[in-house]
Amino acid sequence: MASPTPDTRLERMDDLVSLCARRGFIFASSEIYGGINGFWDYGPLGVELKNNLKARWWQRVVRERDDVEGLDSSIICHPRTWEASGHVEHFSDPMVDCRACKKRFRADQLGDAGKCSAREGSSEHDFTEPRNFNLMLQTRIGASEEAASVAYLRAETCQSIFTDFKRVREVARQKLPFGIAQIGKAFRNEINPRNFTFRSREFEQAEMEFFCHPSGREQWFAHWLDERMRFHKELGVDEANLRTRPHEQDELAHYANQAVDVEYRFPFGWQEIEGIHDRGDWDLSRHGEYSGKDLAVTDPDSKERVLPLVIETSVGVDRTCLALLCDAYCVEELEGGDSRTVLRLDPALAPLKAAVLPLSKKLADPARRLYRELQRHWNVFYDDAGNIGRRYRRQDEAGTPFCLTYDFESEDDGQVTARERDAMTQIRLPIEGVVVWLRERLEARA
Amino acid sequence: MASPTPDTRLERMDDLVSLCARRGFIFASSEIYGGINGFWDYGPLGVELKNNLKARWWQRVVRERDDVEGLDSSIICHPRTWEASGHVEHFSDPMVDCRACKKRFRADQLGDAGKCSAREGSSEHDFTEPRNFNLMLQTRIGASEEAASVAYLRAETCQSIFTDFKRVREVARQKLPFGIAQIGKAFRNEINPRNFTFRSREFEQAEMEFFCHPSGREQWFAHWLDERMRFHKELGVDEANLRTRPHEQDELAHYANQAVDVEYRFPFGWQEIEGIHDRGDWDLSRHGEYSGKDLAVTDPDSKERVLPLVIETSVGVDRTCLALLCDAYCVEELEGGDSRTVLRLDPALAPLKAAVLPLSKKLADPARRLYRELQRHWNVFYDDAGNIGRRYRRQDEAGTPFCLTYDFESEDDGQVTARERDAMTQIRLPIEGVVVWLRERLEARA
Repeated sequence: MASPTPDTRLERMDDLVSLCARRGFIFASSEIYGGINGFWDYGPLGVELKNNLKARWWQRVVRERDDVEGLDSSIICHPRTWEASGHVEHFSDPMVDCRACKKRFRADQLGDAGKCSAREGSSEHDFTEPRNFNLMLQTRIGASEEAASVAYLRAETCQSIFTDFKRVREVARQKLPFGIAQIGKAFRNEINPRNFTFRSREFEQAEMEFFCHPSGREQWFAHWLDERMRFHKELGVDEANLRTRPHEQDELAHYANQAVDVEYRFPFGWQEIEGIHDRGDWDLSRHGEYSGKDLAVTDPDSKERVLPLVIETSVGVDRTCLALLCDAYCVEELEGGDSRTVLRLDPALAPLKAAVLPLSKKLADPARRLYRELQRHWNVFYDDAGNIGRRYRRQDEAGTPFCLTYDFESEDDGQVTARERDAMTQIRLPIEGVVVWLRERLEARA
Repeated sequence: MASPTPDTRLERMDDLVSLCARRGFIFASSEIYGGINGFWDYGPLGVELKNNLKARWWQRVVRERDDVEGLDSSIICHPRTWEASGHVEHFSDPMVDCRACKKRFRADQLGDAGKCSAREGSSEHDFTEPRNFNLMLQTRIGASEEAASVAYLRAETCQSIFTDFKRVREVARQKLPFGIAQIGKAFRNEINPRNFTFRSREFEQAEMEFFCHPSGREQWFAHWLDERMRFHKELGVDEANLRTRPHEQDELAHYANQAVDVEYRFPFGWQEIEGIHDRGDWDLSRHGEYSGKDLAVTDPDSKERVLPLVIETSVGVDRTCLALLCDAYCVEELEGGDSRTVLRLDPALAPLKAAVLPLSKKLADPARRLYRELQRHWNVFYDDAGNIGRRYRRQDEAGTPFCLTYDFESEDDGQVTARERDAMTQIRLPIEGVVVWLRERLEARA
């Protein structure tokens, strides 16, 4: 896909937020009640985009590989899980309050204080001492409030992969090296949710934990870093907006031996969309210790009994959706002083694959026949309202890669006009050949 | 699909629970910590089955219809939502404790008390007065424990459909009648989770709310009841195990004008897997009142300004998966005194579509080539370990509809043996024709 020229690139998140609300990609949860900070809903176009992205990940990471098994575990699991993982003790941010402006900040991000009314570093800020604030959401499970026991909404999907490791390995008869993958919701009580869906309190992760013999750590880390970068490039994102950033030693999580972030250049700066981590044997050793179960396995090559190491790939589904939208967004000047907003989404990921547009409502019947035929194969749209130029603009904004216009000649010559979103080129196409023509353009990248 | 004869039908849930754990369909969450009551994980086969079911629902309810829009809203939404819906006040079960046996029961299900050690109705039970127990799971959102505000994990996915009604209608430019649908997790703090995944505390719903003019209520109720029964029959479930049951007047929820359950005959009795409800204008009127927003719309036919009525279809994804598994399970006596366990799942829903089995490990290379070819299209399995009879049995248990055996003649005649799961018939098939042959058998029902 041709990438937008630099001057058409999204510069202000507000423009995207507005398009997303106006077209129903993503909008605030509970809008009619004034919203709820850090929670977002995906509308008709957004849910299709997100589902296409998740299906692509599942296809590449699980279905196309013999060495990765799928899983779908519960959001609430046994609370011992989070003691073993270290989250109960350590998953917290240091937090300070400003006595002057009454706002709360992360002590490690006091630059944010500059955004409140008081000037950063001025005497107008009067900070309290930092206090630790655990980011896990708590609830209580059980039949009466008194007897109920504390449980947590998972802060990451990977912990169930570790606790289910033994069961999944056995039922799938897998041997080292192999991985377990899942997609699902996770929750963090972020102090300052911000940057649209980038930092929210409820979000979706797609995580894969790959278990290997300690001698394979370098090889598998390199393999997965490669694979994951290839994945992001295949999404059609401009490669100039993608980079990898290895963590410095002092940035590494306490359990991590090596970590590389995949970052995307958002309008608000370079930010992580995926992390590839060498977690060592931290997770299996802790869950082994806390559960009293032996999680070691026999390595098929060396015949040694080993506790496998874990190479993790953890991608934010919402963050990647947001990167796709940011990357696809552009405003173009057209001939005649007009302009258009277009989402240059990869056709395989676009919510709608095609729109069928009769030039006049009088042509609705045959146009609907074509629409019904395409609907058997893809998510397509029918629109017979308004002038054709406006209808093209509406599809451009939705990221629909192809429009098929049924006009007054179509009845005679059995052809429609196929208009391509990005180049706005138009060609005539026999109606009976539309399915094949579309399939070539949609599945080549899939 | 031929249905199992009555004598092979699943009679004891334990047999299915055991198969599900052994083969990795579904098992207890956090098993290594002793499990957590009411929470379940879907393993490699289970997640594929569940995803196939969800994809089928989305296809039938959203993508194939012009009058239903998709949505994916957050699990945690504004707490006013649950005040308006009546859940904060009313979503509770009356609960009694037995002072003798120390167990807790739903006061409206005291028949269950018979299952505890004390005999039902005997003086050995000493019940407390009923107390109301709210079934919503609570948490707290916000930056400090003191200031944090109470929020709820949604008890049903439909409430966000009502709060997002106005936004979705506008972005999708829909007019009455139309629907909004979503699939997602919901949570209820059930007093007695039981019957495997049937009554759990975390579960997945697929709900559709159809908004119509009050004059259309009978017509649309009938339409959706028809559609939904057709859906369940198309899943390949034995129709003798499906029925509809209209609610009696005194069973109707306070907001409901008419309700019909779709029930499946589980080994533990006829139980609801889906509800079709005429909810009237209860939901939109309450959310209009609590939000101060006008949720009325103009009916395109009568041009009246009306608060639409809602016809709801609400299916339990886990319950339907469980019905599919119960219905598919059978144990068959074979010639020679052998027996086999087979899951007669509809091929389009089965987790694995085919298994490629080389008769000997020496034939691995050409068999793997066939496997790679099929993997481009479907979720398939490769197995070269153990004798061929045992490998067939393993695929029977997993519900895999077709096995393709590559034998010593395959190299010469370019054919494999295709074995069908249910009838166990075998035919020779040219390798180059396998994809087309499979597609005909998998997509005819899709």
